[in-house]
Amino acid sequence: MKFSASRLNRMNNNSLYRTIGIQVEAAQNGRAKARLTPNSELCWPFAGQPHGGILFTFMDTTMAWAVLSQLDSGHNCATVNLNIHYTLPAKGKSFTCSAWITHQSGRSSFVRADIHDDHERLVAMGQATFRIIQLELAE
Amino acid sequence: MKFSASRLNRMNNNSLYRTIGIQVEAAQNGRAKARLTPNSELCWPFAGQPHGGILFTFMDTTMAWAVLSQLDSGHNCATVNLNIHYTLPAKGKSFTCSAWITHQSGRSSFVRADIHDDHERLVAMGQATFRIIQLELAE
Amino acid sequence: MKFSASRLNRMNNNSLYRTIGIQVEAAQNGRAKARLTPNSELCWPFAGQPHGGILFTFMDTTMAWAVLSQLDSGHNCATVNLNIHYTLPAKGKSFTCSAWITHQSGRSSFVRADIHDDHERLVAMGQATFRIIQLELAE
Amino acid sequence: MKFSASRLNRMNNNSLYRTIGIQVEAAQNGRAKARLTPNSELCWPFAGQPHGGILFTFMDTTMAWAVLSQLDSGHNCATVNLNIHYTLPAKGKSFTCSAWITHQSGRSSFVRADIHDDHERLVAMGQATFRIIQLELAE
Repeated sequence: MKFSASRLNRMNNNSLYRTIGIQVEAAQNGRAKARLTPNSELCWPFAGQPHGGILFTFMDTTMAWAVLSQLDSGHNCATVNLNIHYTLPAKGKSFTCSAWITHQSGRSSFVRADIHDDHERLVAMGQATFRIIQLELAE
Repeated sequence: MKFSASRLNRMNNNSLYRTIGIQVEAAQNGRAKARLTPNSELCWPFAGQPHGGILFTFMDTTMAWAVLSQLDSGHNCATVNLNIHYTLPAKGKSFTCSAWITHQSGRSSFVRADIHDDHERLVAMGQATFRIIQLELAE
Repeated sequence: MKFSASRLNRMNNNSLYRTIGIQVEAAQNGRAKARLTPNSELCWPFAGQPHGGILFTFMDTTMAWAVLSQLDSGHNCATVNLNIHYTLPAKGKSFTCSAWITHQSGRSSFVRADIHDDHERLVAMGQATFRIIQLELAE
Repeated sequence: MKFSASRLNRMNNNSLYRTIGIQVEAAQNGRAKARLTPNSELCWPFAGQPHGGILFTFMDTTMAWAVLSQLDSGHNCATVNLNIHYTLPAKGKSFTCSAWITHQSGRSSFVRADIHDDHERLVAMGQATFRIIQLELAE
């Protein structure tokens, strides 16, 4: 599936992304990029640091868009397994996530992702398996 | 640290848990139990199903309480690595998470956790490493 | 599949298990148990400690037998993902691994396993996804 | 630590690597490269395919050399956690593994690695945490 800027804008406007502070910026050819601007109420227990679960949600989402970018219309994907390492305390007002498919075979996609802070420091790295499912994408 | 019911109540009343829908119910002797009542705006893209990142946040939080229950006052913990498998689509209005320390040595805690739905079906399983840090717990 | 003691004995007599020092002791109802008696040449770089990869091979093998014990004849399984945590340095002449299926759905099996040393100390814990495949088991 | 070709040759000549079929080819600046020429007796249960545990041992070893290449003499490292995904059945007579440190802080190193077959196809990907320890490297 190809995602035009206007379609991404429309997709970004959902209750989950607004609550978490996620904006998908690009998704094509098995790669995706997104930005997290964490809401302060999700920076707990350490003020100014998004909770690890918020970073995970951000990573999982970006990975899913990398997978979606390779699928035909009428398909969607579900996370089977995601392994995340937190390499540094995540401080700052904005983070970027890059995700890329490393291998796709049959109904499985293997994906990696990195989250960087505003100073290009790696704060989290992950790798995952997604399963391709036949389901319309909520729009 | 011991957490009385009134202290847990106070701890539960924070912006992250309220937004996600988390309530820690017990934390002692290296074990913790919590409940997730997911907010509908976080059930996306599949209505009625909390996003995988919400389940992860719930699991990570419950694990952290298992670790905290073994620490002396003045210490806190941070997730180094968490590996999560989603075993079934998570449907329902309420989920429980149980977490338990499997080994603690020096400044590292190893933890496992399960999330079940209301019909006692396993929807996610995880294992993690936490690092013990010297920091006051935000209260 | 059911594995009688004599069939397990036959299965145990293969070049991989002999080299590594693995003996599967039981496999039924989605659970398996095995013993590792590590060969000294695989205890490197720390004398008396099997290499982490040897422990992993032992765990992966025991998990596979837990999965096989639930399959019909003519099926086999392949590891998709395995996450292992080493909780303690593994010292000793003998180790046991217990593995159990936590969930099975369609062609995927989710499994956990623990490795203990001779003093019942946990030295490694793991969780994994296996895919069921249609292939005869080498015998 | 720097590892000259002659020192690597000496290091490669140990009982574990000989049994598994591992040759470390380069290790410097937080990156390492190694080759696996699997012994046929470790290609079980599928002839011509090294067991997943052998691939894991190969990956874990290569990662450790990436970590060692950044350490001062008198230090060594131990795997705390390694997560491996098998992306394709591993067929062939020779495999290469590349490993690289993604972040190092205090006594922890975070590492990723890929294993490719002779046709440059990705057969396994991994990410791990290593702990730095003060111990002489067996030579």
